[in-house]
Amino acid sequence: MALIVQKFGGTSVANVGRIEAVADRLLACHERGDQLVVVVSAMSGETNRLIELAHSIQSTPDPREFDVLVSTGEQVTIALLCMALIKRGCAARSYTGAQVRILTDNAYNKARIQEIDGGALLSDLDAGRIVVVAGFQGMDVDGNITTLGRGGSDTTAVALAAALGADECQIFTDVDGVYTTDPRVVNGARRLDRITFEEMLEMASLGSKVLQIRAVEFAGKYNVPLRVLSSFEDGPGTLITREEPDQMEAPTIAGIAFNRDEAKLTIVGVPDTPGVAYQILGPIGEANVEVDVIVQNVGADGTTDFTFTVHRNEMAKAEAILQRIAAELGARQVISDDRICKVSLVGVGMRSHAGVAAKMFKALAESNINIQMITTSEIKISVVIAEKFIELAVRSLHSAFDLDEPVSGDARG
Amino acid sequence: MALIVQKFGGTSVANVGRIEAVADRLLACHERGDQLVVVVSAMSGETNRLIELAHSIQSTPDPREFDVLVSTGEQVTIALLCMALIKRGCAARSYTGAQVRILTDNAYNKARIQEIDGGALLSDLDAGRIVVVAGFQGMDVDGNITTLGRGGSDTTAVALAAALGADECQIFTDVDGVYTTDPRVVNGARRLDRITFEEMLEMASLGSKVLQIRAVEFAGKYNVPLRVLSSFEDGPGTLITREEPDQMEAPTIAGIAFNRDEAKLTIVGVPDTPGVAYQILGPIGEANVEVDVIVQNVGADGTTDFTFTVHRNEMAKAEAILQRIAAELGARQVISDDRICKVSLVGVGMRSHAGVAAKMFKALAESNINIQMITTSEIKISVVIAEKFIELAVRSLHSAFDLDEPVSGDARG
Repeated sequence: MALIVQKFGGTSVANVGRIEAVADRLLACHERGDQLVVVVSAMSGETNRLIELAHSIQSTPDPREFDVLVSTGEQVTIALLCMALIKRGCAARSYTGAQVRILTDNAYNKARIQEIDGGALLSDLDAGRIVVVAGFQGMDVDGNITTLGRGGSDTTAVALAAALGADECQIFTDVDGVYTTDPRVVNGARRLDRITFEEMLEMASLGSKVLQIRAVEFAGKYNVPLRVLSSFEDGPGTLITREEPDQMEAPTIAGIAFNRDEAKLTIVGVPDTPGVAYQILGPIGEANVEVDVIVQNVGADGTTDFTFTVHRNEMAKAEAILQRIAAELGARQVISDDRICKVSLVGVGMRSHAGVAAKMFKALAESNINIQMITTSEIKISVVIAEKFIELAVRSLHSAFDLDEPVSGDARG
Repeated sequence: MALIVQKFGGTSVANVGRIEAVADRLLACHERGDQLVVVVSAMSGETNRLIELAHSIQSTPDPREFDVLVSTGEQVTIALLCMALIKRGCAARSYTGAQVRILTDNAYNKARIQEIDGGALLSDLDAGRIVVVAGFQGMDVDGNITTLGRGGSDTTAVALAAALGADECQIFTDVDGVYTTDPRVVNGARRLDRITFEEMLEMASLGSKVLQIRAVEFAGKYNVPLRVLSSFEDGPGTLITREEPDQMEAPTIAGIAFNRDEAKLTIVGVPDTPGVAYQILGPIGEANVEVDVIVQNVGADGTTDFTFTVHRNEMAKAEAILQRIAAELGARQVISDDRICKVSLVGVGMRSHAGVAAKMFKALAESNINIQMITTSEIKISVVIAEKFIELAVRSLHSAFDLDEPVSGDARG
């Protein structure tokens, strides 16, 4: 008998028909003997409807009251799903975040979970009930309703799994797992049977938007096995776990992520002196512009060039700030480019395999793709290239690293 | 500085525009120096939408989950109203029933309030905040969400007023007060400045649907002055209070209530023996048919006739039961009639004024209206007559008891 936390997002509970389908699926698991804690989001469209109501009153809604408002979305779903289970003769009980006592800090709209009291839930499970919990919400120590921010239902599921010592946390989505890369770009993209938390973090933050990053971090921190599955078809999905020692010889590369949302800014000919990076990025950060890749080359002639990427929507804002800084620093020029993309190889295996970077650059060179920027981490190599080369680059790398080929009998699957 | 509890129903908060209008009104009261606790219902239509969702899953929704579902309606309103107040620069804070700790029993869908902890609310008021509370809901001692049943927001308002020692509880509705009778039937119907709790109970239960009966009972029990006002226009409304000694000489009759929802059933020629009333009404009650007026005359020849009224929709059901009982008791006949109505005179004054009944029957006789049944209580006389006479009867009585005439300078206004 396993204790499983299952999370169904807004699309999976979009209407009464889908809620009934989720109930059927839960019943099947329950009849197999699993103990189930189910986390649900608001019915898709509902959160947006509530947000629009708020905005029709306040352009920037009061944060506390905003959370009181939007948390009703999940509360509706938990009640309806329990009704569907009870109709099927299955004992079920709903809990709001406050009823579970999912204790958070008081940062309304983006609260962080501090503590979960799983006592009542475990009693329900022992009594044979399916427990249905509203995702995305909690309460602070004074009893105020808080929300975890959009997509926080994944985090609720993982946090509950950790608090209850669940055997697995299953996130049901509209895809059937995590792929080596986007199947819309590479036909041969394969579903991974398994990936590590670290790899998943790099894949997610780089644009393979399957899971919320916070949920993956949380799962890694508490070592909660996390599985991504399809809501609409059966299948094993992709299991996200810690790296296990006997898998050190697993293939080097888990997958290829890419992102075309970024723009590149270069400030040319700034003094190559201590503190210059802060002088440039300080004002950018103060303007709440998030910076992704940062590259500074060793300078010649006492000056250097400083390049970074921001979200494409923020390019104009960043460029205006940069023009001001350039004047202050006596820089020669500011160059911006929003026709770029970022392509990244991700894999824990590359830590112990020399030559991954060389192989990557060779594959890109053979396709005549010029590399504009390079950054590396322990388990990732990213390049910034012209946007027009994105598909070509991803396909070349997918093939060069043998990701197309089904590999049988190893941990990657 | 007065502490006022104000309650706005679904029509008064039907959309964002009306919520903004309520905020304007609250702000004006707040600026006059009143401390305000505001109780709101769900936006009109919202509760029905939620109930339909529930019914699309379960024909008889699970009671616990039903309360989890429908309580979201008021939660949306409290958040939006607070946003509208905060936008106007007025500090405000929302509370769900559970957050106030409106403690109820665990009778889902029709819970009764047991205890209210007003501490947090009073602190907010002292800090200059307007407090906005979700009507209609509470929680039981185990933290389960409960609802008080439809219209329970009035009860929430009165219970809060009692718990906080409020100076007045104001119920804003779509009428501007309590009238001597229905103005659609009698042109000269007058708004009452004042009415007693007991009179209001009789008026409400007899068809003048302005306030929930439970709320009036509650207000009477805790002596909370209750005022009915219009949401849409200014005016003093009608104050509902205890009878005060110096008003013993107030006019005899407060108003005339009537009801055309009933049907009359008579079982003719039942044995005039002890227990026969129970033999007849026991099975009716077991079938969950509510009985209103009951009349049994003194019998001749060892048999008697037994007549009662039920809601018109339940006549067929009651008649079927009665046919069975008639056979068992050897009664002669069962007669039913759904073309009847009930007209009632209500007024605490009639306790000390002889001749009210006689005057009533005389007025009806002068209009050639035959009286089919008569029942009386301390402050009420009701007659059942043919439905076609309803307007004629109400107008005759309104005139006979001088209710048309504006009476200046007395407590009735």
